[in-house]
Amino acid sequence: MDNRPIGFLDSGVGGLTVVRELMRQLPHEEIVYIGDSARTPYGPRPAEQIRQYTWELVRFLLTKNVKMIVFACNTATAVAWEEVKEKLDIPVLGVILPGSSAAIKSTVKGKIGVIGTAMTVQSDIYKQKIHLLAPQMEVTSLACPKFVSIVESNEISSSVAKKIVYDSLAPLVGRVDTLVLGCTHYPLLRPLIQNAMGEKVKLIDSGAECVRDISVLLNYFQINRRRELTDQKGSHRFYTTAGITGFKTIADNWLDQKISVEHVTL
Amino acid sequence: MDNRPIGFLDSGVGGLTVVRELMRQLPHEEIVYIGDSARTPYGPRPAEQIRQYTWELVRFLLTKNVKMIVFACNTATAVAWEEVKEKLDIPVLGVILPGSSAAIKSTVKGKIGVIGTAMTVQSDIYKQKIHLLAPQMEVTSLACPKFVSIVESNEISSSVAKKIVYDSLAPLVGRVDTLVLGCTHYPLLRPLIQNAMGEKVKLIDSGAECVRDISVLLNYFQINRRRELTDQKGSHRFYTTAGITGFKTIADNWLDQKISVEHVTL
Repeated sequence: MDNRPIGFLDSGVGGLTVVRELMRQLPHEEIVYIGDSARTPYGPRPAEQIRQYTWELVRFLLTKNVKMIVFACNTATAVAWEEVKEKLDIPVLGVILPGSSAAIKSTVKGKIGVIGTAMTVQSDIYKQKIHLLAPQMEVTSLACPKFVSIVESNEISSSVAKKIVYDSLAPLVGRVDTLVLGCTHYPLLRPLIQNAMGEKVKLIDSGAECVRDISVLLNYFQINRRRELTDQKGSHRFYTTAGITGFKTIADNWLDQKISVEHVTL
Repeated sequence: MDNRPIGFLDSGVGGLTVVRELMRQLPHEEIVYIGDSARTPYGPRPAEQIRQYTWELVRFLLTKNVKMIVFACNTATAVAWEEVKEKLDIPVLGVILPGSSAAIKSTVKGKIGVIGTAMTVQSDIYKQKIHLLAPQMEVTSLACPKFVSIVESNEISSSVAKKIVYDSLAPLVGRVDTLVLGCTHYPLLRPLIQNAMGEKVKLIDSGAECVRDISVLLNYFQINRRRELTDQKGSHRFYTTAGITGFKTIADNWLDQKISVEHVTL
């Protein structure tokens, strides 16, 4: 047993989609979350800069005495996950392998689409991971660079958002039976994405898939948090590098509960 | 990637229930299976003997160059899993933690039943693991010492089997909403067990739950087998310490395919 919290990092609010799923599946675990909204989006930045920012987030989480770190960010996973996993002596999880496995399991015709930030798509990491497991899959990747900003500015219900999602996804419509949401911000746009792609396309939420892995690794390394008799809520802590108001509005809404957020300078 | 096979051990044919689920979820992985039917059942034996037998099975699998070992046997998991996991430098999985987690997730009223061999029940390991995670659960354990022999002798369709299952489970009927099949032989008796307990009781197949863990750990340690272009079947190998006919009859039927079995002396 290990009652320390699980640390989550993201370039902004996107990782909250992983947190929401964690709260559903493992409600007794305690969470420390750091979102780098001051420097979001990570997607268009050079790899070396993303690597450096990611290490800053990792080091911040380590000061919070976490027992595991979850890269709740595809871009950071693509750039720095293997390196960080290698260096730390606590488990470090990314979202790309779980998303890849789930897509392979889901696809019927072997035609998988992947959408993500410019860096995630440019790194070609989903295609590589999917092809390592299943070389016969046809993988089409598409960068959707505008999506993160829509989410971070809480514009997901606007008509502009709808148009951007429809226009961006047009090249994939009719070409895939499974679509990986290869950025943890994207599940916040899920209804728009599902509509644009058509009801038959299976959407894979890389973050939600990752929670299954968290659960299994907590078991394997025997570091589950002890559930209390009264099912009391853990005291989750959320940090953002930007102003707290924007973060809190999105988080309260998405997590369906009032959370407390602190500003932090890295 | 790691194209070596996954090793499974069991006191007999029970672990085939885990293998069947693995073939469904991860059809590209290759399997080496050793069933100690000559010395089955393990349940009534002293712990030290079970420990020694389990190590013999582990050492046999290591000669087959496996990348991971699955204790597809609750009794062996209860007695020797932690020790073997500690000693080997490949991942070693048991079936008890996955079964415990699944039961906690499944139960509505917090009343969990566990059935297993005499040793598994005597070790009290399910109750301990469940209580570590969720102290408020009410766990009732019951040894069903006759079930393994029914399965090993392929008598699962006989009227004697039905009577044994009904009589054995009577103390649990109406007292639990979730029942852990804490022995990998028991899913072969699933229809009888479900009937005896009533349709509303959720049965947890500890072996099937374990396959989820196998999948996640293959990803985490990056030791998946590369899927081939032609989806070709791996060349699975099954070994038994008893005669091959009995093992093969049960395996062909349960796995719904003709398998080849070799006799081996440990």
